[in-house]
Amino acid sequence: MSRPGVYLALVHHPVKARDGATITTSVTNLDVHDLARTGRTYGLRGYFVVTPVEAQQALVTHIVGHWRAGEGGQRVPERAEAMRLVQTAPSLEAVCQELLRIEGAAPTVVTTAARGGRVAVCDFATARATLAAREAPVLLVFGTGHGLTDAVLAAAHVHLAPVRPGGYNHLPVRAAVAIILDRLFGDAGADGP
Amino acid sequence: MSRPGVYLALVHHPVKARDGATITTSVTNLDVHDLARTGRTYGLRGYFVVTPVEAQQALVTHIVGHWRAGEGGQRVPERAEAMRLVQTAPSLEAVCQELLRIEGAAPTVVTTAARGGRVAVCDFATARATLAAREAPVLLVFGTGHGLTDAVLAAAHVHLAPVRPGGYNHLPVRAAVAIILDRLFGDAGADGP
Repeated sequence: MSRPGVYLALVHHPVKARDGATITTSVTNLDVHDLARTGRTYGLRGYFVVTPVEAQQALVTHIVGHWRAGEGGQRVPERAEAMRLVQTAPSLEAVCQELLRIEGAAPTVVTTAARGGRVAVCDFATARATLAAREAPVLLVFGTGHGLTDAVLAAAHVHLAPVRPGGYNHLPVRAAVAIILDRLFGDAGADGP
Repeated sequence: MSRPGVYLALVHHPVKARDGATITTSVTNLDVHDLARTGRTYGLRGYFVVTPVEAQQALVTHIVGHWRAGEGGQRVPERAEAMRLVQTAPSLEAVCQELLRIEGAAPTVVTTAARGGRVAVCDFATARATLAAREAPVLLVFGTGHGLTDAVLAAAHVHLAPVRPGGYNHLPVRAAVAIILDRLFGDAGADGP
């Protein structure tokens, strides 16, 4: 049996607004592309765009189809390869159920927080070793807007430490995903994590 | 006298097309924002958007003005702080002259290449130590399109190794900048590199 996979989820609901309210953000075309390309670079097995809004799920499916099967994929084959990782899900619960189905085990859920202090955090060296020794699939969860809600953080198994504790704190999610994948899986070889 | 600064340049000309021809790419709004935010996160002193096209320089100035002095900056102050790093330049030579003017020394030019093989490369541990001990400003140069031209690479002082040698090779420039800044300056403290 093959090694359990690592997956990415980008959550559009439930996430926080600037004022702390729980909101639903819009999917952006660029987050679909960038996280797929970065995920593919680090050998991830899938990337879930999480939104309960059916029209937004349809938008993602349309974008991905253009690049996977359509004109875009013929013109840029490496983009097609990245876009094959992408699928939509209505909720994080649905992602976990899908991983249980395809991997045969529920995932270890790993969250990230730009700001520390709400939950106990795991440093990157420890997280890297823990994930390298994994016996279950791993789901790395990133929030849009002003971040994951406290309920999502509380339900996770591992909370990564902030990338830049104490400093300026306004990194794009596209950059945070790249830095965190590199810290967790960088130099793990071309075969991926 | 303060420590020499680290700067970022995103080159829109001269860069390569898929077929190897030298082209000029268009500025994108998101590269202005993302690289400014990531640069600010890692304590960089400036970010040059390099394009010889005057209309594109004006576009960047317009975007930056909205966020620095206009409505955007009032609404999202941390974005204004990032956008203060941004300026335009018509060429890499002009960037080097500007750094000589403001820092009193010509910069050490560091290039990155998604593909190895064209020039001798410097591993990240060595580059990190070299840059930490610097006595001159540092200019990290990233290309758009299909990368920097061989002439730009040949004129640089340091060539960083590819982020993922041998593997899938289609990382967004927004992700590459984030990973490389983290490898070179991560954990250097909130005061920056």
